[in-house]
Amino acid sequence: MSHNTFGHLFRLTTFGESHGPAIGCVVDGCPPGIAITREEIQTALDRRRPGQSRFTTQRREPDEVRILSGVMEDEAGVTRTTGTPIALLIENVDQRSKDYGAISDRYRPGHADFTYDTKYGLRDPRGGGRSSARETAARVAAGAIAAKVVAGVRIRGALVQIGPHEIDRTAWDWDQVGENPFFCPDPGTVEVWSDYLDSVRKRGSSTGAVVEVVAEGVPPGWGAPIYGKLDQDLASAMMSINAVKGVEIGAGFAAAVLSGEENADEMIPGNDGTPRFASNHAGGVLGGISTGQPVVVRFAVKPTSSILTPRRSITQSGEAVDVSTKGRHDPCVGIRAVPVGEAMLALVLADHALRHRGQVGAPISETGVS
Amino acid sequence: MSHNTFGHLFRLTTFGESHGPAIGCVVDGCPPGIAITREEIQTALDRRRPGQSRFTTQRREPDEVRILSGVMEDEAGVTRTTGTPIALLIENVDQRSKDYGAISDRYRPGHADFTYDTKYGLRDPRGGGRSSARETAARVAAGAIAAKVVAGVRIRGALVQIGPHEIDRTAWDWDQVGENPFFCPDPGTVEVWSDYLDSVRKRGSSTGAVVEVVAEGVPPGWGAPIYGKLDQDLASAMMSINAVKGVEIGAGFAAAVLSGEENADEMIPGNDGTPRFASNHAGGVLGGISTGQPVVVRFAVKPTSSILTPRRSITQSGEAVDVSTKGRHDPCVGIRAVPVGEAMLALVLADHALRHRGQVGAPISETGVS
Amino acid sequence: MSHNTFGHLFRLTTFGESHGPAIGCVVDGCPPGIAITREEIQTALDRRRPGQSRFTTQRREPDEVRILSGVMEDEAGVTRTTGTPIALLIENVDQRSKDYGAISDRYRPGHADFTYDTKYGLRDPRGGGRSSARETAARVAAGAIAAKVVAGVRIRGALVQIGPHEIDRTAWDWDQVGENPFFCPDPGTVEVWSDYLDSVRKRGSSTGAVVEVVAEGVPPGWGAPIYGKLDQDLASAMMSINAVKGVEIGAGFAAAVLSGEENADEMIPGNDGTPRFASNHAGGVLGGISTGQPVVVRFAVKPTSSILTPRRSITQSGEAVDVSTKGRHDPCVGIRAVPVGEAMLALVLADHALRHRGQVGAPISETGVS
Amino acid sequence: MSHNTFGHLFRLTTFGESHGPAIGCVVDGCPPGIAITREEIQTALDRRRPGQSRFTTQRREPDEVRILSGVMEDEAGVTRTTGTPIALLIENVDQRSKDYGAISDRYRPGHADFTYDTKYGLRDPRGGGRSSARETAARVAAGAIAAKVVAGVRIRGALVQIGPHEIDRTAWDWDQVGENPFFCPDPGTVEVWSDYLDSVRKRGSSTGAVVEVVAEGVPPGWGAPIYGKLDQDLASAMMSINAVKGVEIGAGFAAAVLSGEENADEMIPGNDGTPRFASNHAGGVLGGISTGQPVVVRFAVKPTSSILTPRRSITQSGEAVDVSTKGRHDPCVGIRAVPVGEAMLALVLADHALRHRGQVGAPISETGVS
Repeated sequence: MSHNTFGHLFRLTTFGESHGPAIGCVVDGCPPGIAITREEIQTALDRRRPGQSRFTTQRREPDEVRILSGVMEDEAGVTRTTGTPIALLIENVDQRSKDYGAISDRYRPGHADFTYDTKYGLRDPRGGGRSSARETAARVAAGAIAAKVVAGVRIRGALVQIGPHEIDRTAWDWDQVGENPFFCPDPGTVEVWSDYLDSVRKRGSSTGAVVEVVAEGVPPGWGAPIYGKLDQDLASAMMSINAVKGVEIGAGFAAAVLSGEENADEMIPGNDGTPRFASNHAGGVLGGISTGQPVVVRFAVKPTSSILTPRRSITQSGEAVDVSTKGRHDPCVGIRAVPVGEAMLALVLADHALRHRGQVGAPISETGVS
Repeated sequence: MSHNTFGHLFRLTTFGESHGPAIGCVVDGCPPGIAITREEIQTALDRRRPGQSRFTTQRREPDEVRILSGVMEDEAGVTRTTGTPIALLIENVDQRSKDYGAISDRYRPGHADFTYDTKYGLRDPRGGGRSSARETAARVAAGAIAAKVVAGVRIRGALVQIGPHEIDRTAWDWDQVGENPFFCPDPGTVEVWSDYLDSVRKRGSSTGAVVEVVAEGVPPGWGAPIYGKLDQDLASAMMSINAVKGVEIGAGFAAAVLSGEENADEMIPGNDGTPRFASNHAGGVLGGISTGQPVVVRFAVKPTSSILTPRRSITQSGEAVDVSTKGRHDPCVGIRAVPVGEAMLALVLADHALRHRGQVGAPISETGVS
Repeated sequence: MSHNTFGHLFRLTTFGESHGPAIGCVVDGCPPGIAITREEIQTALDRRRPGQSRFTTQRREPDEVRILSGVMEDEAGVTRTTGTPIALLIENVDQRSKDYGAISDRYRPGHADFTYDTKYGLRDPRGGGRSSARETAARVAAGAIAAKVVAGVRIRGALVQIGPHEIDRTAWDWDQVGENPFFCPDPGTVEVWSDYLDSVRKRGSSTGAVVEVVAEGVPPGWGAPIYGKLDQDLASAMMSINAVKGVEIGAGFAAAVLSGEENADEMIPGNDGTPRFASNHAGGVLGGISTGQPVVVRFAVKPTSSILTPRRSITQSGEAVDVSTKGRHDPCVGIRAVPVGEAMLALVLADHALRHRGQVGAPISETGVS
Repeated sequence: MSHNTFGHLFRLTTFGESHGPAIGCVVDGCPPGIAITREEIQTALDRRRPGQSRFTTQRREPDEVRILSGVMEDEAGVTRTTGTPIALLIENVDQRSKDYGAISDRYRPGHADFTYDTKYGLRDPRGGGRSSARETAARVAAGAIAAKVVAGVRIRGALVQIGPHEIDRTAWDWDQVGENPFFCPDPGTVEVWSDYLDSVRKRGSSTGAVVEVVAEGVPPGWGAPIYGKLDQDLASAMMSINAVKGVEIGAGFAAAVLSGEENADEMIPGNDGTPRFASNHAGGVLGGISTGQPVVVRFAVKPTSSILTPRRSITQSGEAVDVSTKGRHDPCVGIRAVPVGEAMLALVLADHALRHRGQVGAPISETGVS
C-alpha cells in the first residue's frame, strides 16, 4: 500500500504540512557505503527553492536540511550511507498562515480543498496543508541520495514549453539550463518566456508548462514486464507530482500519428559489438525494460490554480462565492517542477536498479549468493 | 513489489505466455457477495477478442474463460463471490508458433525482444512470450469482476484518434461505440478510419491511436494524497498496457497552454445542495482525489511494431540483419486497447473504492467496526 | 497488502477451494534460467499427499500438478524458468462434499466456520472451503521451485513431538525421516508414536504435534533489520500454516530460562579464516540476519479440530447444538505439516536471497549494474 | 517490501540510531479525526523509558517526543489527526558512545555485530546502531496512536516469567501490573523476581523472560485467510522485537500435547444471542480471523547478550578474543519489552481494523461508498 511512500526496494516516505513545524522524509533501502554529504542534498534543495527570481513564489524558506540518521563517517572521514533508513528534516520557517485566512471556508477552484474536505471531513486551510507543493522539497532531497545510488547515470531536466511557447529543440544546450531562471535549454527562448511570464504575473494569472527529464547511461535491462514496467513507474512518479496532468515516454502522444515504419527504432551493430539504435522514439524503454538509450520522460503541468481573477466557487456550507487568491504563488509552477521531475526520475531508477539486481543474474543456486 | 501483480486491496496477478498452454489470472481481495457469472466475464472477453474484423489480427482464439475458484452459488442459485481469490483460466488454442521461426534469432525493432534477452538471458521467440498483448485478455476478464465491485460507476471507452485522424468530439455518441469495428463514438469518422486502415493494412504497415476511457458516477473522495493519488494509479495502469507511450487526465497536455483562468473548473451550488462543476479540465481528479465529476483518461498507443517493410536490426550475436514480420498482427493495436483501458480503469477504481472504505469514515474507536 | 500472496521479491499467490474444481498458485519473481521439471514438483507433492498411511486422512487426491506458464525448454532440452510467472494447477478429483452436509449449518469448534461466516457473511460448507489444509498443496508445489532457487541450501524437516511424546534428540538421524510415516528422525520413537496414534485414531480423537525445519548452508547476511528480519518472516510463514499456534527460532521459549552466559553462542576462528560458532541457541539468526549457522525453526500444530466426540456448539441462527465430525480427517495434522513447513522455509529463504542481492553488494554507482 | 516499515493500511516507518542525533517514526494511514495529544504519546513512552529502577539500564533518556505533522487543532481546541502522515521525533540526549570504544573491532556474542558487518560491510559500533533496542521507543510512540484508532479494544501486557520463575496465573490481577518495576500481574511473584534479578545483576549476568499481551474487545471478523492471518501478523510483529525468539497464540506450544477434545473451544449461545466460548485455547483467533474472544499472545525474550563474564569471540579480522561488556545494560530486557509488545499488538490491530473495513461489508456496488 502506498499513501505517502514511493518505491519498492528504494523507498521514500514523506511527511509534513506546509504550515506545520517541519517537513521531511525517510529514505529506506539505500545500499550501504555510498558517499553522500549534507551539502550535496542542500545543493539539490537550493535548486528547487522558491524566492529565487520574480517568476517563482516570494515565499522565502531557507530549506536547511538536517540528516537525522542513516549515515556515518568512515575512517577516512567520508560520510557514507550505512544501509539503515536516512531521515531528512527541514524545519518550516516562513509559514505566514494569515495569508490564507480569507479562503479557509471556501473551496479554491483547481485546488484540492474540496476533495480533501470531502474525503477526510477536515482540511488544513493553512496553505493547502499536505497538498502544498512544499512536500516536493522532501522529494528533491531524497532524489539527491537516489542520484548517488545510480551515479553512473546522468539525470537532467529542462523546461521545454511555457504556455504556447515551445523551445527550439534543435538549439538544445544542456549547459544553458543553469544560466536562466527557467531551466530553459534554448537560449533563444529565454526572452520569449520572460516577457510572457511577466505579462502573466502582472495580470495575476498563471500558465501551464511542459517539463522534460532525461537519464543517460541507464544500462539495458532495468524494469520488469507487465506490472513492473520502468515506464509504468515513471508515469506513476511524474503523475504524483502536484499539478501534473499528463506524462509521456519518448515519442509519447506523437506516436499516435506515426506509422510503424516511422516509429521503429532500427538497431545497428555498434563499434564495440554492442547494439546501437538509429533513433529513440521508444524513449529508452521497450516492453517496460530499458534499452540502454536515454530514458526520456515529459510531463505537463497545469497552470497554478491560485490566481487573482475571481472565480466562482462555493463555501463548505454550499453557498455560492467568488474566490481569488492573494497569497504568494508561482505564476508557473512548471518551473519549479523541473528539479522535482529529476528527483522522481532518480528515485525510480534507483528502485529499479536494486530490483534488477535482485531479480536476475546468475542463478542463486549456482553462486550461493554469499 | 509488483512484477505481475496490480493493485493493493483489489489485486490482479496474471500469468501465461501467448504460446504456452494457457493464460489466466488470480483476482484477490474481491469483497464477498458480489453476483457475477461466467457469462459476464466471457462477454467482456468477446469484446476484446481478435479476429472479429479485417482490422484486427486474424489469430483466432475462442478465449473461453473458466472460473476455478472464489465463487459459489447461494441458496437462490445466484453465483456470488466468496471473498476468496478468483482464479480465471483461458486455454490457448491457436498458438501457431511456426509463424515465428524466422525471427527467433533476431531482434524485432520496437519489440521487447532485445530488452527481454538482455535482462533475462533468454526469451520466448514464440510470439513474444509474456510481452505479447495476449496477456491483456486476463486484464479484461478481471476488469469484468472489478466493474461489478463498483457497479454504481459507469465505465466506458472509445477510440478517439487513429493516425492523424481525430474524431469530431461534438458528434460523440456513446451508443455508436458498439456499432463499428473501431469503438468509434463518432459515426462520421468511421469511414475515414476504415479507408485509412485499409491502406495501412494493404501496405503491411501499422498506425498509432489514442484511446479515451471515462468513469461516470465515481463519488468524490476516492484516491489518496501524495503517492496514493487516483490519477497516479491511473497513469501507472494505462502505461502498463502494451505499446502505450503517453497518458493524460482531463485536459492533459493541453493544460500546458491554458491560463489559470481557463483551466479553473468553477464550482456552483447544485440543486440538491451538492456542488457542481462548470467544466472538467481536471478530468475528475484534484489533488489525487476524485471530485465526483467523470474521471477522464486518455492514452496514446504506438503503431504495431510488426510490419512487413524490412527494418534494420541485429541478431542475438550482433550481426546486422533486416527484419520484416509476416505473422498475424493488428495494423492498429489501439483498437483492441479500448476494452483493455476500460478494464484497467475498473481495476484502479475497485482498488481505490476498497482503499477509501478502509482509510476514512467514522473513527474506528467510536464505531467498534464489528 | 497480502491476502493470498506471500513474499516480496519471490512471491507466491495461491487460489482454490478444497471442493471446487481446482487449486493452484502463481509463483512470481522466480529468476530465469533455473532448471526445474514437473516431476520434481510432483515428487514434493507426493510427499505431502494424504492417504499414504492409516495415520493420515483417507481422502485420496492424485494431486497431479500441471505447469501452465513460466518455463521453457532450452536448446539442450532442459526445462528452465524464464523469469515470468509460473502458474501451477492441481485439479480436485475426490471432493466428496456429501460428507459435510450434516455440518453445513453449524459451527465446528476449533474450525474457522464461525469466523469466516462472521467476516464474509457466507462460508463454503464443503470441507472448509479456503480454510481447508488442501491449500497447502499449492505451497508445497511452490516450495519445490523455491528450493531450486536456493539450491545451495539444504532444507529438511522432521516431526519432533506428537502429543506428550518427544523424540530423543541425541538419536537424530536425518536418513530415518523418510523411513516411517511420521517424518520421525529418531527410529526409537516411531513405535511409541505409532501406538499412541492408533489409540487416538480409534477413539476418534486427535492430537497436537511439533515440527522442526532446518536450513543448512544459508550464507551469513540474509535478512534485514527491524521489520525485514529473517526470523520475523519465518514466524509469519509458519504461523500462516493451518492449525499452527506457536513458532520458535533456535532455543525459542527455552531461551527465557537461560542466563546470558548460557545463551551466548561463542565465536571461534574457523580453519579457513571464517568464523565458527560454538553453539546455535540463536537458530542461525542474529538481529534478523542469518549467521551462516543452520537456521532452525520449530512450530506447534494444534490437534485436528474434527473429532468424533460430540462438542457443544451453536448453529448459524444461534441455537445450541452438538457437533461431531464424521468426515475423513487426520488424527494428527502435524504429520502432513512437515513438508509444508519445509516449503515455507524454502519460500522465505528464496525471497530473502533475492532481497539480499538487491539490497547490498558493491554500490551500484561504482559497478553500473549492467 | 518491508525494511523499516510495518503494516499495510496503518503503517509505521521508523528511523534513527541509538547514538545518532535522533530517532523517530512516521505513522501513515491513520484515519482523520482521532483525538490524540502529545501527552498521551509521552505517557506511553515514559512507561517504556529506561532508568526507572535498578532492574533496567541506567542510561537516562528523557525521550521527549515532538509531533512534527499530521495533527491539527479543531475549532473546539482538540488536537485531532488529519489523515496525513504523523511524524514523531525523539532527540537522543545521553549517547555516551565512549562506553563502546573497547568493543568496536570485535563481535559481541549474541549481538548483531557480526551479521550486520557481514551484510553491510560496516557497522555502527556506537551501541549497536540500528539494532539497539532504542528503536523500540518509536514503536511505543506509534503504538499510542494505534491504540486510539482501536479505542474500543483494551490492550494490556504483563511479564509472566523471568528465568525459571513463572507467575501464579490464578493470582493474575491487572491492577498490580503498574505497581511494581516488572509489569508483574501477580504480587506474590514480585519479591521472587526482585531477589532473582538482584543476584543476576550483581554477577553481571542476564536472564530471559516471557511477555504476555492481551487485547479484549476485538470484534469477530478481523484478520484474513491464508497469508493475511491476524495471528500471522502478530507472530511477525512480536518476532520483529529485539531478542524475541518465540511467539505463541492462545495455548501455543501447549496445544501440541492436547487432544482434540481438550483443545476445542466449545461454543454456547450467549444471553444476547451472540455466541460465547467456553474456553480460549485459540487465543481469540481461528483460521486467521478474530473470534471476539480476547486475543492472547506470548513471546519469549532471550537474556541480554551484553554480560560482564568474558565470552570467546573474534575480531573483525578473524582473531580470537574475549569479549565482556561494561556498558549500561538491562539484566532482563524482557521487562522493557512489555510496553513494546503492547505497542506491536495495537499496531497489528489498527492495521487489521482498517483492512477489515476495506475488505468486507455491503458490496460497494450497492452502497456507492460515497
